Order: sequence, then C-alpha cells, then structure tokens
Amino acid sequence: REVRAEAQQYLDNLKGHPFPNSEKLYLTGSRDDLRVGMREIHLAPSVIGGDKDNPITRDNESIPVYDTAGPYSDAASELDVRKGLPPLRRDWVLERDDTEELPGVSSHFTQQRLADGGFDHLRFDHLPKPRRAKPGNNVSQLHYARAGIVTPEMEYVAIRENLGRDRVRNEILKKAHPGQNFGANLPEAITPEFVRDEIARGRAIIPANINHPEAEPMIIGRNFLVKVNANIGNSSVSSSIEEEVEKLVWSCRWGADTVMDLSTGRHIHETREWIIRNSPVPIGTVPIYQALEKVNGVAEDLTWEVFRDTLIEQAEQGVDYFTIHAGVLLRYVPMTANRVVGMVSRGGSIMAKWCLFHHKENFLYEHFEEICQICAQYDVSLSLGDGMRPGGIVDANDRAQFAELETLGELTKVAWQYDVQTIIEGPGHVPMHLVKINMEKQLADCMEAPFYTLGPQITDVAPGYDHFTSGIGAAMIGWYGCAMLCYVTPKEHLGLPDKQDVKEGLIAYKIAAHAADVAKGHPGAQIRDNALSLARFEFRWDDQFNLSLDPETAKAYHDATLPQESAKVA
Amino acid sequence: REVRAEAQQYLDNLKGHPFPNSEKLYLTGSRDDLRVGMREIHLAPSVIGGDKDNPITRDNESIPVYDTAGPYSDAASELDVRKGLPPLRRDWVLERDDTEELPGVSSHFTQQRLADGGFDHLRFDHLPKPRRAKPGNNVSQLHYARAGIVTPEMEYVAIRENLGRDRVRNEILKKAHPGQNFGANLPEAITPEFVRDEIARGRAIIPANINHPEAEPMIIGRNFLVKVNANIGNSSVSSSIEEEVEKLVWSCRWGADTVMDLSTGRHIHETREWIIRNSPVPIGTVPIYQALEKVNGVAEDLTWEVFRDTLIEQAEQGVDYFTIHAGVLLRYVPMTANRVVGMVSRGGSIMAKWCLFHHKENFLYEHFEEICQICAQYDVSLSLGDGMRPGGIVDANDRAQFAELETLGELTKVAWQYDVQTIIEGPGHVPMHLVKINMEKQLADCMEAPFYTLGPQITDVAPGYDHFTSGIGAAMIGWYGCAMLCYVTPKEHLGLPDKQDVKEGLIAYKIAAHAADVAKGHPGAQIRDNALSLARFEFRWDDQFNLSLDPETAKAYHDATLPQESAKVA
Repeated sequence: REVRAEAQQYLDNLKGHPFPNSEKLYLTGSRDDLRVGMREIHLAPSVIGGDKDNPITRDNESIPVYDTAGPYSDAASELDVRKGLPPLRRDWVLERDDTEELPGVSSHFTQQRLADGGFDHLRFDHLPKPRRAKPGNNVSQLHYARAGIVTPEMEYVAIRENLGRDRVRNEILKKAHPGQNFGANLPEAITPEFVRDEIARGRAIIPANINHPEAEPMIIGRNFLVKVNANIGNSSVSSSIEEEVEKLVWSCRWGADTVMDLSTGRHIHETREWIIRNSPVPIGTVPIYQALEKVNGVAEDLTWEVFRDTLIEQAEQGVDYFTIHAGVLLRYVPMTANRVVGMVSRGGSIMAKWCLFHHKENFLYEHFEEICQICAQYDVSLSLGDGMRPGGIVDANDRAQFAELETLGELTKVAWQYDVQTIIEGPGHVPMHLVKINMEKQLADCMEAPFYTLGPQITDVAPGYDHFTSGIGAAMIGWYGCAMLCYVTPKEHLGLPDKQDVKEGLIAYKIAAHAADVAKGHPGAQIRDNALSLARFEFRWDDQFNLSLDPETAKAYHDATLPQESAKVA
Repeated sequence: REVRAEAQQYLDNLKGHPFPNSEKLYLTGSRDDLRVGMREIHLAPSVIGGDKDNPITRDNESIPVYDTAGPYSDAASELDVRKGLPPLRRDWVLERDDTEELPGVSSHFTQQRLADGGFDHLRFDHLPKPRRAKPGNNVSQLHYARAGIVTPEMEYVAIRENLGRDRVRNEILKKAHPGQNFGANLPEAITPEFVRDEIARGRAIIPANINHPEAEPMIIGRNFLVKVNANIGNSSVSSSIEEEVEKLVWSCRWGADTVMDLSTGRHIHETREWIIRNSPVPIGTVPIYQALEKVNGVAEDLTWEVFRDTLIEQAEQGVDYFTIHAGVLLRYVPMTANRVVGMVSRGGSIMAKWCLFHHKENFLYEHFEEICQICAQYDVSLSLGDGMRPGGIVDANDRAQFAELETLGELTKVAWQYDVQTIIEGPGHVPMHLVKINMEKQLADCMEAPFYTLGPQITDVAPGYDHFTSGIGAAMIGWYGCAMLCYVTPKEHLGLPDKQDVKEGLIAYKIAAHAADVAKGHPGAQIRDNALSLARFEFRWDDQFNLSLDPETAKAYHDATLPQESAKVA
C-alpha cells in the first residue's frame, strides 16, 4: 500500500529534526548520565532604535521549552528504527541491583511466537533480554519513594518540570497571573524530594517499566504539568507496523507525553516491540484487546490464564502502563440499561459481556491482587479503566459511571498496598457544567491518585470536530486538577486517524494542557505566552512562528496572504 | 484575480441550498407574514427487529434546528444577488407609521459618491430609498418594548428561540441535564411578552435597522441562545466585493447569527451596500474604520463632523449595529504604558492616537448623546467597543481594561435614556481562570446589557489555532452568561481569512455557543445532542452526519477509512 511505502520511506530517512530555529538543550543533573533533554527556541533581536538601514538592536534570550521528542528532535542523533533508541535508563535500573535478566521470555504466548518462523520478517532484530525483579523485590518507583529513595528518574522529572526557567532573565517574560489551582500544590521550584514525596503519597506516577529503558522519565500528577496522551495502533482492517512506528515518532514530535498502542490487528506483539524500542515516551496498552485476539474475538472465551500471560508478555516487552477494566462489576452492568448510548468503552463492553455470560464477577476484579503482583515486578503502572464511561452527554455522571469510579478508588487502595503506581481513567462525554464534579469526585474517591481523562467532550453535535469539542472539556478538567488528557482526533467516532489527524489531535490537546497549566498557575507556564506576545508586539514574525506550538502552520498561514519576507519583519 | 472569478461564479450560480436530508420549515406566528424559517433534519428509520433482508423498522421524527441561512438554505428560493433578498420586515416597519421615506440620502459623503459616475460599475442596482423616524419619533425596539408594544420582530424571535421543540415527541430526545446558569433566567417556553420584557430591561437587543428589512429578526441576550458573529471585510491589499458577498452567504450557511463588515479598502461604501441587501442576518460595522479612510488614514485628522456623516451614511444603508469606541478616555490611555502588548484594538488605537495628539477627550465620548440620537432614528444598536482590551493573556484584566468597562457601563445608561439598544464588547486574551470575573464585572457594571466578546483566547502559544484557543474561552464565557461570541479564524494574528477559514472559525464558535447553551440548561438545546447520540447507538451513520454541525466533513472523514455504503448502516 502507498501509505505503508511512505511510512517506510519516512523511517528510512529519519534524522534528528529540530524545530525551526530551535536546538536541543541538555540540562545535567547530579550525575553525568542524567541529562534532561529540553528544546531551546532562539529568537531574533529586538529593534530598539536607529533606522531601517542601521537599526540598533538588543538580543533576546532563548526560550527553553519542554520537549517530548527525545532524540528525534536532536540534530546530533543517529537514528535507526531497526536498532531502536539508546537505553537511557539502563544503568539506573542495573545499579539498583534488584532486578535480574531472565534467560528467556516468561510468557507462553511470546515463547510460541518467537518459535514461529512465520513472523521472522516482522520481528524487531535487536530484542533485548527481559528483566524482572529479583524474587521478593518490588521495583516500582512508588516502592522506592516510600522507602525514601530519590531515584535518578525522580531527579530527571524534577529538572524537566522546572522547564529550565531559572535560565530566563527578562522580567517581562516572568510576569504571571496568580493561578487558581483548586487545592493543587505547585511549588516555585520542583525538587527531587518533592517528586519523591508526591509519588510516595500516590499523587503522581512515573510510568517506567524496567524493560523500557529507552523512555525519558516523565511524571503524571496534579501538582505537575498537565500531560497529553496520544492513541495510535493498527486495526485488523488497516495500517502496518511501519505506519504505527511513523505515528509514534510523529506523536512524540507534536508533544505526546505518553503513547497508547491500541493495536487490534494480527501483529500486535510485533508492532508493540517496534514501538517500545523506538519510543522516548512511556507506552500504555489495553491488554484485554490482545487477550481477546488470542481467543479469536469471543469475549466469553476469555480466561484469567490467557489474560495473565498477556500481562507478562507485555510487561517483559516494556509496556509502561496497563489499562485494566477491573471496575466493571457484574452488578453495575444492568445500571446501563436505561442509558441512551449504553456502554461505549471497548474494554468495558468486553468485560460486561463476559460477566453477563458467565454470571460471574469480572475476573480482573477477582484477580486484581495478582495483577498488582505482576506489575510490581516490572514497574508497570496501572491505569484503572472506566468501562462504564458515558457515550453521550445525555448519559454523563449517572450511577453506573460513578459506582465504577468508587470501585476504582477501592482498587487504588489495593494497588497501593502492592506499591503499584496507579492512575484513574475518566470520561468521556460530559457537558461543561458537569465536568467539575467528575474531578472532585475522583479526587475524593481515589485519594488524589492522578486522573486521566478522555476529553471530556462537551457536546455531541460536531462529529469531525471532536478534537475540539473534547479539547474544551480537557482544558477545563486539566485546570480543575486532571493530570493527563487523552487526546481525541478529528476522526473520533468516524474512522481511524491518519498522521495529520494525530497532529491535529495533539495540537488541540497541547493547547488544552498548556491553558490548564497557565490557569492553575504552574510557575513558568506563562513564559512562552509572554515571549510570543512580546514578539507580536515587536512584529518579530519569525519568532511568533517559532514560539508557536506549530511553527509550520503559523508560517504557512501568514505567508498565504502576506508572503513577502519584508512583511515578516515590518 | 482567480479568487474573484470563483466568487463571481459562486454568486451567479447561487441557488437555495438545503443541508443534506434537510428541509426548510416555516413556523407561522400570529400573522401570515410572520413565518420563522427553521431547518428540519429528516432521519432514517431505526431497525427494531426482523433480519437483514426483512428488517422491522420504526420511523424517527425530524429534528428542527435553528437556521441562520435565511433564503439561502431554502430549495424554493429564487436568488439573485443583484436584486437582493426580499424585504421580510418592510410591512412591519411601514405599519408602525412612525418612519418616512426620505427623498434622498442625508449623508454628504453618500451624495457625492452617488454623483460620481466612476463608481457606477460597482454599485448595487436596486438601491432602496432610505427611511428615517418621523421627527420626534424613536423607532427602536427598545422604545416599543418600554411602551409595552410587542412587535412582530419580538414575536418572531420568540418562536425562533423555542427551536420548534414542542414538535418533538420522543421522550429520549427531551432528556436534559438541569443546567447551571449563574443567574440567567431561561423559561421553559419563550413568549413574545418575555422577549419584550427582556428588551425593555436592556437585557437583550434585536438589532434591526429599519433600512435593513431583509434581515430575519434575532435576539442577543443572556436569557436566549448564545449567538455567534462572523467578521468579514476586504482590506486595501486584497479581495473584492464579489468575495465579500460570497463570504457573507457562506457565513450565514455555517451559522453566523450576525456578520460584521470590517472592510477597510477603497470601496467600503459599495461593498457594504451589496452585503446589506443580501444579508438575512444583522450587519455590524466599526464606522471609525471608514471615517479614517475619509481622512486618508491620518487619525489626527478625524473630526466629529466626518464621523457623524459616516454614521448617517451607514444608518441609511441599513447597518444594524455600530461598534463605537467611546470608552477610550484620554486619561485611560497612559494606563496601557506598562503593558507587554500595548493597545491592540484598531478602533481603540485610532482614538487613543487622536486623544493624545489633540490632548482632548475622545470625541465619541463627548458626542455620545448625538450618536444615540442618530441611532434612535434608524434603530441602529450600539456595540460599545473595548478599545483597551488586552492583546496577550499577560495584560488581561488590568486597570486599563476594567476602567474602560466601567465607562461603558455609564455610557449604557446614557444610551438607554435615548432608548437605544446596547451591547458591550469584551476581550480578547484572558487565561481560563480570569474569564469569569470578566463576565461578572460586565454584568454588574453594565446592568446586564448583553456582553459580546472576542473569544477570549486563553493562551497565546498557538497562532494558527486561535479559533480553538479562543473557542475554549468562548464556550466558558458563553456558559457564564455572555450573549454573543465574536468568532476568530485560524488566520487570526497571521493573515486575512479565506472562505475555508471563515467556515473553520464558525464551526468552532457554533460548538462553543451550543456547548454553552447546554451547560446553561437552555430548554431544548440538548435535543440535537441526544438525537445524534441515539443515531450513534443505533449505527445510523447518515443521521450522525446530517445531525452534525458540518455534515460534509463528518461524512468525508468517515468515508476516508470506511467508504463502503454498507459500513454506514452496519
């Protein structure tokens, strides 16, 4: 297929690709191998006097900004998707000396898959050996945090969250409105100890599977910058491994803080391997999707054993967080009967079907402690899925939705007993005035475990624009305290997103997340707004483009009506 | 130019163009010539049993929705832009017998312009004779309302605001969350008397110049549906009359409730004539733009006499509301000195320049009562401009902005003494957490006169996406009580919008306005969401497209990945 060939070409020609007039900046921490990648946007000088021919100018300092692109935005990177990214965190994991390299993979499915030569042509060539906690050890960041240990990962995110703002000198850039944070705690400077403490309290997580050392540490919690997740993944009807790896790289470029691989096709295992080895951001999955493939799509045939093997398979590949729909209880399913849109969560529907058919309690709920035990051995974080989320604003905030949320709070307590890092997924479709109660109830019921919402979409009347209808709700709930926003693309409800859709979705959600940071009063968030406003006041057009979330589009729109170079510096 | 030729072709081929599977529906009021145009979306039947070959179905009722497109969305319309639209309101104006047809135009500028054969080729051929209040009469809807008179215009908007929802039978469609309305008063059914009362209190306006009888009455006020304005207008560097008329028709199609003609080029007068004669929605202008053209762009040369003649010129053409920057007082101008972005309102900057140069008080403020007297003779509404609005979130809610707002409140009282309908313009660039105070202060300072805001844009980091950054703020302030949202297009801050940009801006703002209506709990607003959700639940794909704000885009996105007809009914 043509799209596939294009993707292959994109990957073959992949080079470190900085944004316009931007450079990679590494802020080094307490050890030489702790280098936090940022992006520095260089600006043009301001004209402060003189005349057209002999202007007197003043230099403008560069603006450091958060960068999710990892090596992909560094001109100095040597990139080869067949080899994967360098294992940034490997030494940190090894130094802790609480894990061991396994002689082989533990999952039966993976063993069979590797033995099957029919998949050789699809396989990633440099498969690392999986690691696991040594017997009796717990290797989660939550476990270390509770033991009072500040890991390099914690220090990394502390530096990263500070946005390099101690480098900024211009007082105008530092002007900021006091925020309204609804009880969030946003210190002037984030210290590694603050990070440790937030993780220890369960208020933040660093999704960091020991088998995904390529990922740059990032933190999800209400007292940090609001994060954005991008969903990618092929389906049985379309797209190839190449296309998904291309979408991964593309997602990181446009600001995805984490990426969920929601593949449902034939080569889920191999696709995921390529994605993880090439991802500088944490990767999440919904393991029930793959488990369902293993039972040929028949939900009733799902078993704990198949699911358990899938968890181990994915944990050893390096998946950083699992969405688990353990809150879809048998007794909650009938609560959706009076809904207009029923159940729309795929994972939730699968589990509801299973529960009703067997008239048994959800096996994810029944085996939740075993799930936690597996997660603790690899530091896979849990993302407790909202299988009962509403599928239309008409069904928002009903008893089914909130009953499940309460159960997710109970499960959070269980996960915390096992020192498993946990976040909670949220809706969905909620009108504006009902968004806040979702946040408040989640904070209360789940003891401030980070909230991770899909939108919410605040009206149903605009298919084709649901990145926007949901971006409004996302901005609001981010302001109220949501820690991570799962993007929605323009194709939501209509079809599968292509590359351009992924970008549109990400820009919409980066806007929402940033607007939330500004409204909460995250220190330093407003610097970029101020720098852009000042560039606008001084007619520094190129700086306006380069400071924007999408320099290419800003420049193209400008050039469409005023294409002359002179118009840009006028 | 090519674009111009395309526009000409578009206009030559203009026919009544209903939306897919939609039909024009006219709801008749207390008199035969009071026919309120709505749009009715027909739906496919639901499959409730049987099998694939012999399905048992149940018909679905059609969904009536608000329609701003006037005759342009009626397949039965005979359209000819050279003749203009039928004068829907002419008889109502004549029956009141308080106006007179003038023998000729009163404006000196218009007289000279008409005498100049050089403009003949640009002129609209069927220029109506202007009307004006008979001496001693006040012909504003506010004047009638205060006298206890329910005009046909008031009855028209009452029917229109009810959205035809008494026709809806399906209880599922009528499900609605109780809203959160922050003190708005949203009755279950809007009566003509309620409309009259709201206008009498100054809480709503019907912009309805007696010289623009082609426009369909619509109402702007916090206790009614949130409205959207689209800005069009040529500039000295680009676009023709044809293109602007095309943009007008296009704007009405995509949901503009009013259109502002912000033209600044050479043929402002003629462009406006074509726009008004062909507009089914009220037209607003910023008269200072044209006044400035008349003094060759030199702000210091502006005089009250030139401005006054411009008001009369435009009032007799049929402009429905004037933006007047009468709140930019001499003593407020220095308050902007410490801003990062200074003054960004074009009208505000013109007046500030004039004030500083002459060191005199703003002549719009000094002559405000004469402005009101002119408006009362034609029923031109006033939109009190916010010349001090912030140009970056860093400058939001400063003393300059709020000082002007307080003055606008004083001017509102003056306008009301003359029975002139008045709305208040608002920002601009405001971070999310500072939006609400803008609404609260405006309601308090301006005694609930309708607020009409530009966005507000809630972050400055995304040029190219400012329809979205501002759409978020627009949705929020609409919920809080803003009556009309001035759209922003993706080209904002970068260049002049083309047709596609106008559509993008409008869709974003229709989403914001609708989401606000739902959140406020406007009765009937949620019907369309529910109908779409139900269509989604039942896999009625075509209904999902047709119920959406942009059926073409929804269908195209769907067909891009799942093009088979069968997939749409699966």
